[in-house]
Amino acid sequence: MQQEFASRLLEEAVTQLSRLPGIGRKTALRLALHILRADEPSGVALGQAIIDMRRGVRYCSVCHNISETDICPICADQRRDRSTVCVVENVKDVMSFENTGQYSGVYHVLGGIISPMDGIGPESLEIDSLVERVASGDVREVILALSATMEGETTNYYIYRRLAPYMDVRITQLARGVSVGNEIEYTDEITLGRSLVNRTLFTDSIRR
Amino acid sequence: MQQEFASRLLEEAVTQLSRLPGIGRKTALRLALHILRADEPSGVALGQAIIDMRRGVRYCSVCHNISETDICPICADQRRDRSTVCVVENVKDVMSFENTGQYSGVYHVLGGIISPMDGIGPESLEIDSLVERVASGDVREVILALSATMEGETTNYYIYRRLAPYMDVRITQLARGVSVGNEIEYTDEITLGRSLVNRTLFTDSIRR
Repeated sequence: MQQEFASRLLEEAVTQLSRLPGIGRKTALRLALHILRADEPSGVALGQAIIDMRRGVRYCSVCHNISETDICPICADQRRDRSTVCVVENVKDVMSFENTGQYSGVYHVLGGIISPMDGIGPESLEIDSLVERVASGDVREVILALSATMEGETTNYYIYRRLAPYMDVRITQLARGVSVGNEIEYTDEITLGRSLVNRTLFTDSIRR
Repeated sequence: MQQEFASRLLEEAVTQLSRLPGIGRKTALRLALHILRADEPSGVALGQAIIDMRRGVRYCSVCHNISETDICPICADQRRDRSTVCVVENVKDVMSFENTGQYSGVYHVLGGIISPMDGIGPESLEIDSLVERVASGDVREVILALSATMEGETTNYYIYRRLAPYMDVRITQLARGVSVGNEIEYTDEITLGRSLVNRTLFTDSIRR
């Protein structure tokens, strides 16, 4: 039901907020009324931060991560190993890997994974630009770091086929195994099988 | 855990969004990345709508409903019956009653209900201004339309006591009864008792 609003300005803000994912008109109204209850500078700061972000943020021309400059800070960092490229689905995954503190290579953000059900084919992802990076000759290893789902595996395989001509480039993928903290009893059998086949030396885990 | 952001502009937008009720940093990041994926005019329109709303919307000096003018459209409407005042908790409730299409009086928005647990006493609500409206002599009926909760009943009783000196003003409250569409089996016994005591003529319901 269309609600009667006391103010066109409120109605416009509710309409805009309800375009965000997971936010319906009821939630949008609750958010708008919260903004109205808070002091004016707070509300204006929220609106301005959104405008500044949308106007100021673009995508790195090398790895397609978000950036405020043409080349993102990770690609521009001389201390990072540019011969190792970690292929991820989106910019959130870049943050996740950066937070591990375990990676010193660079990234390549696909912008999604192949999903015919959602109409996402290889041509709508940054796969051609990945092949170009590899073709340029500076890359020694490509780490496929996509989700361990059907779509992720499909995308992995597609990329693997596209990179097959570059025979001196190692193509690796993330280890599959028991999640740290998880019990064996609640781990599925496919994962258990993979974790058995790819078992590692116990002494290696002690040394880390 | 504090996440590493590729952009200060993104970080600022996430910080601002996460101040909204029910939105944590993870959701805020998801919203921000959605805004970045959409086209630039959409993102700027969202930010601008929030700023315009916060700068343009104020409260009606009579009923405290939101308004873009000193007196809100409802209070200013000559066709509305100013001798009947419906007391509600917040501006959302005004919208709900307006949507029924059954009310032609005016409103008084308290801005909350008495709730000692949350530190909300009568003095932080628009109760003094309600008493002033009634004291001015134009009001014939005050409808207490607060939630049927402990806090709502407490607030009703407090207002009733404050308005007791104005003996020619009728003080009414919303009917309690079985919700339309609800089954008797799932209606609580206090509500059933009230609906029995306050039963109405069947022919009245046919005529409507």
